[in-house]
Amino acid sequence: MSFASDTAVTPRSPGAFDAEIRPGWDIAGNTNGGVLLSTAARAILATAEQPHPISITAHYLRPGHVGPISIGTEVVKRGRQFATVRAELHQDDKPILAVLATCGDLATQEGGRYIDAHPPELPNFDSLDGKTSAESAAAAFRASVDSRLHPDDAGYVEGRPSGTPLMRGWFALPQDEPIDAIGLLLASDAFPPTIFNLLEPPAWSPTLELTVHVRAAPAPGPLRCRFSTSFRHGGLYEVDGQLWDSSDTLVALSRQIALEPKGTPFTTP
Amino acid sequence: MSFASDTAVTPRSPGAFDAEIRPGWDIAGNTNGGVLLSTAARAILATAEQPHPISITAHYLRPGHVGPISIGTEVVKRGRQFATVRAELHQDDKPILAVLATCGDLATQEGGRYIDAHPPELPNFDSLDGKTSAESAAAAFRASVDSRLHPDDAGYVEGRPSGTPLMRGWFALPQDEPIDAIGLLLASDAFPPTIFNLLEPPAWSPTLELTVHVRAAPAPGPLRCRFSTSFRHGGLYEVDGQLWDSSDTLVALSRQIALEPKGTPFTTP
Repeated sequence: MSFASDTAVTPRSPGAFDAEIRPGWDIAGNTNGGVLLSTAARAILATAEQPHPISITAHYLRPGHVGPISIGTEVVKRGRQFATVRAELHQDDKPILAVLATCGDLATQEGGRYIDAHPPELPNFDSLDGKTSAESAAAAFRASVDSRLHPDDAGYVEGRPSGTPLMRGWFALPQDEPIDAIGLLLASDAFPPTIFNLLEPPAWSPTLELTVHVRAAPAPGPLRCRFSTSFRHGGLYEVDGQLWDSSDTLVALSRQIALEPKGTPFTTP
Repeated sequence: MSFASDTAVTPRSPGAFDAEIRPGWDIAGNTNGGVLLSTAARAILATAEQPHPISITAHYLRPGHVGPISIGTEVVKRGRQFATVRAELHQDDKPILAVLATCGDLATQEGGRYIDAHPPELPNFDSLDGKTSAESAAAAFRASVDSRLHPDDAGYVEGRPSGTPLMRGWFALPQDEPIDAIGLLLASDAFPPTIFNLLEPPAWSPTLELTVHVRAAPAPGPLRCRFSTSFRHGGLYEVDGQLWDSSDTLVALSRQIALEPKGTPFTTP
């Protein structure tokens, strides 16, 4: 198994694709949102005939689970530089994800430069053990990706939330699988919710919507990621993500809005 | 004229609405993106049968101009708490805006509180003159809204960009028209592009995509707004917006991704 093969799509008819949610990508039985988005994005890029999702937004309608899915795509506008495509992902004859994306070729864009942020400072990749930052509900998912949390942000696993809604860490794929533009979509939703550092015990926190701007094709190597929340109020919180590659380039910006956990807490082993 | 009447929609058939782009909302002949989004949002909320666009994303396909438009909407999922609706706005038989939104009632959500930001510090509303911060290309639009830039961010109008991609200011509607959840969508795209403080002369900077999270219905009074850019590279830049109401509540978060200006500079009077 690999991320690429587990999120592959098969064309069925013009604009329509079949795919399958494989085991190992769920958190407490619900498919990770980044995997759903990545699968939808492969169908979208095929329809767009463009290499990169420059801005992609997904609204999460129902949880996904292991089994077959179908993806319908439609070109909204095909322009000279960009193609805008919408998609709907169905499982058990119900829509589970609605997506809208503008795709293009990042290599053709150019302009000035202004950067006022920097990658998060993290302990060396090899010095961290990904396993220690996995609450049991996410154990299967944490074996499918190689994410390694900053120790300062991982205390929630043992019932010691830091009090700051921040999750920093490395993101890689097992067996040195390269991270491409679609891997950035997975990474954008691959870390524990920031809110796990504000409350306990952890429980399912439903994402309503996730938008990712892919800003550059990543250089080889693990990503350094930073996810933070500035506004938790009214039952909602946003998660702002920065993904940096090994050349210190900001390769993706993500933001999601999620509902506070209200359901059954994840069990701790 | 008022913002509410100029962005009103008329139901034509189930899910389909007619509207009209009125004079006074353009920048160098192209309709402001917030006005297009606000008009689409009125149709979306009517179809959703919900009061608030909790997360709304628009992809800008073609510039709009004064004249009739039509809006098609479709419910993707109607749930117990939320309704997800997609919409397409057409002018001259072509799609100009594609929208995806999840709507609900913010008053029914509740939870904990964590805020680590504060409203921008601005000179008193009455001490600022909105007119002095309007480059000529935006003169018509700046008469339709009452936005008042922080003087430190307004030098670009006279050829003195600050060097920092930041635009802070007050936002109000003329004649004390109240700002509701849809007014927040207008405000999210009502300030000059942050990049005007990095280059000159100003020119049209096309928005590819704009997402707004409406986090609370605003208390009466002008909004304090802060728009900033952290990542300008590869021909693209994002604009992050925070909108605060008179009770110091963060009422909306916005983010757009835009292309660097490449066309004819705006003329200066």
